[in-house]
Amino acid sequence: MKPQVLRGMRDILPERMRVRQYAMGILRDTFESFGFQPLETPAMEYAETLTGKYGEEADRLLYQFEDRGGRRVGLRYDLTVPLCRVVASYAELPRPFKRYQIAPVWRAERPQKGRYREFWQCDVDTVGSASMLADAELLGVATQALRHLGFVDFRIKLNSRKLLVALAEYAGVPPDQAVGVYRAIDKLEKVGVEAVRSELLEEGLSGQAADRLLELVQMHAPEAADLLAQVEKQLAAYPLGVEGARELGEVMGYAEALGIRPGECQVDLSMVRGLEYYTGPILEAVVERPRIGSIIGGGRYDHLVGLLGGQDEPATGLSFGLERIIDVLEELHMAPAEVCRPLTQVLVTVFSPGSASESLGLAQELRAAGIRTEVYLGADRLGAQLRYASRKGIPFVIIQGPDELAAGQLTVRDMAGDGQQRMSRDAAALWLRERLANASG
Amino acid sequence: MKPQVLRGMRDILPERMRVRQYAMGILRDTFESFGFQPLETPAMEYAETLTGKYGEEADRLLYQFEDRGGRRVGLRYDLTVPLCRVVASYAELPRPFKRYQIAPVWRAERPQKGRYREFWQCDVDTVGSASMLADAELLGVATQALRHLGFVDFRIKLNSRKLLVALAEYAGVPPDQAVGVYRAIDKLEKVGVEAVRSELLEEGLSGQAADRLLELVQMHAPEAADLLAQVEKQLAAYPLGVEGARELGEVMGYAEALGIRPGECQVDLSMVRGLEYYTGPILEAVVERPRIGSIIGGGRYDHLVGLLGGQDEPATGLSFGLERIIDVLEELHMAPAEVCRPLTQVLVTVFSPGSASESLGLAQELRAAGIRTEVYLGADRLGAQLRYASRKGIPFVIIQGPDELAAGQLTVRDMAGDGQQRMSRDAAALWLRERLANASG
Repeated sequence: MKPQVLRGMRDILPERMRVRQYAMGILRDTFESFGFQPLETPAMEYAETLTGKYGEEADRLLYQFEDRGGRRVGLRYDLTVPLCRVVASYAELPRPFKRYQIAPVWRAERPQKGRYREFWQCDVDTVGSASMLADAELLGVATQALRHLGFVDFRIKLNSRKLLVALAEYAGVPPDQAVGVYRAIDKLEKVGVEAVRSELLEEGLSGQAADRLLELVQMHAPEAADLLAQVEKQLAAYPLGVEGARELGEVMGYAEALGIRPGECQVDLSMVRGLEYYTGPILEAVVERPRIGSIIGGGRYDHLVGLLGGQDEPATGLSFGLERIIDVLEELHMAPAEVCRPLTQVLVTVFSPGSASESLGLAQELRAAGIRTEVYLGADRLGAQLRYASRKGIPFVIIQGPDELAAGQLTVRDMAGDGQQRMSRDAAALWLRERLANASG
Repeated sequence: MKPQVLRGMRDILPERMRVRQYAMGILRDTFESFGFQPLETPAMEYAETLTGKYGEEADRLLYQFEDRGGRRVGLRYDLTVPLCRVVASYAELPRPFKRYQIAPVWRAERPQKGRYREFWQCDVDTVGSASMLADAELLGVATQALRHLGFVDFRIKLNSRKLLVALAEYAGVPPDQAVGVYRAIDKLEKVGVEAVRSELLEEGLSGQAADRLLELVQMHAPEAADLLAQVEKQLAAYPLGVEGARELGEVMGYAEALGIRPGECQVDLSMVRGLEYYTGPILEAVVERPRIGSIIGGGRYDHLVGLLGGQDEPATGLSFGLERIIDVLEELHMAPAEVCRPLTQVLVTVFSPGSASESLGLAQELRAAGIRTEVYLGADRLGAQLRYASRKGIPFVIIQGPDELAAGQLTVRDMAGDGQQRMSRDAAALWLRERLANASG
């Protein structure tokens, strides 16, 4: 049998790698500009560390096995649990601890279009600050990252786990039924009021309770502050509701200073993030044009570090849907031309076995001038060498025959323009750099 | 139990991450300047793909398990086997296929200082060229990479699997005993002639055969060409010996053109690389000052793609001891000052809850000017905010009290110089950029 890649996993071939590296570079630079520092954790953790943190469904998706030392181990399912383990382990890390991590995670999901069993996540989190400034800052990070990636039309939806809990109380839903209610109202935008109402009735809510709930989550006001004032009034009897509304009010109050334009960030009481561990503000960023849906999600989770053996510590973070972002950058050709062009800029041909050293030396000079240069690996006929350049899309080819060598000259062929030009060897690097710089412009 | 990192695995905390990112960046840029392109493969492969390629000892170190679909899978042990699987799978990849990959691998080794169960490898390979130009080019890559990393005194040892096979024949060693002989002569530099001679006798060689062998592997000549001519003469009766000597002669002939200085690359007939799959030139780079030993190894392996289900294809590559390189860069402070300095360049303090938006807005301006800027997350007493900056080593702190705000001014405190200076808000970005640029110089 011919060896194959495992089902649900992928090789990323060179052309696609360059877009990945570009996207990761943008994200990394954005995070660092806010003072978030890189962190790396092992792919493998004690299974005990990983299980029970994400819910039963997720536990089923964990890659788990016994290692040779008889330890029950698993491959990480996300980057949040390893972060909390790190924070619980190293007392010396300054607080707040602001870190980002860009790394693969593994889930034994049923493979389908755009969903893989190994995929990269990109997370940015602040641990050790209960301040709403930390949550607001992440709104700023999300906005900057989307802009730098070239997304123009996006909307950040903001809600609060505290408000959701209060909403359930307000609708008279017992806590153990709340998850079903959240799941129903999360679909509001997609399926409409009537469908959500039916689902709420199926969940056991009375018609009156369902209506109360739907009225509240659909409240609108041109200004977030007005909306939140109304919500706070409606939920005045529920302390978590008041707290949640005030927290969102504080976060929204910082939006303008963070460069978020009016309308880019909205309170949306029907937005529910699935994860159980959120405790405060939650957010989701949706790109509207092109319509690619949710590509960032996150929120505050003040108890997860405690669950992982540390003291309870306030924490808040974002996770970028990196694979989706990369797919979109590719599909819509959003990466700069430079990223999509072939990596190699110049091919130095080899005229004959005896002149290979000349070719290698010239290539070294071009590299020293910052030009990515390949030497053809062999002294095949020139036609074969040109075909190689053309297949790989290398824009310039250098030819040095015996005449040219004797005269200290060379010929540069422009593979796109089809013209060629003889010049002194000394002039070549400068000439090529100018042409390559123009092509990037 | 408090969750822990698995034995033999590590968290890489932020300060160490920056040196890693720096080293990987240098390697990546070097590889790309030669036209090598990035590739990524999944961490997991069919166990069948991984086993039997590295020898029995290695098979014992593989992390293997059964996935939920009943497939026998394993975590990759190196980056060479996945490369060969890729090459055997995608007919459309142009040949020669020049790729690099920087990624973690897993081995269930007994943990010890500097040896981990998860560690990053960094490989650069050319598949599909039998030309010695491909092997020579990798010498150039190794040299450039070491120089760019800041290593000044290094030596590349070059040998050939073909010569080793011929040596064994020449000494009358039957093929199935050759491995023991290679293992013995590999120790020549470390343990000396007498100890190697004893080991050869233990391996069953006659005294005469051992002496013939030792005489040959110790041959020296000021010029590689002279040495290789002597070797070729001695091994004239062994076709592989003649071929091996000529191939090394060709590679050495390109060294100067590749920017390798005399003495930096030497033929060393006692240098043996462990891996069974090598078929042609093999090399090892040793850093001599500081004395940190071998940090690059590689060679030609013309049958591995065939073993992985493809057609036999010539291939040659290098593997960098990335973890070792990073350790040395750290220990000897070889990374540029900029890499070792704290990431955050400026902390904007928050004078009072009411002025937090001012602080966030100012930070956004500084970021737009290319300055990595944190906002203190809260309105704690100024002393606490300054302590945070000082613990994190942030060089500049900005303070904006009500007076300053009213006057459109701010105070910049230089945390190293202990001085502070009031200036207009508009001037701050430019002033800071100048100071930060000077500090990097």
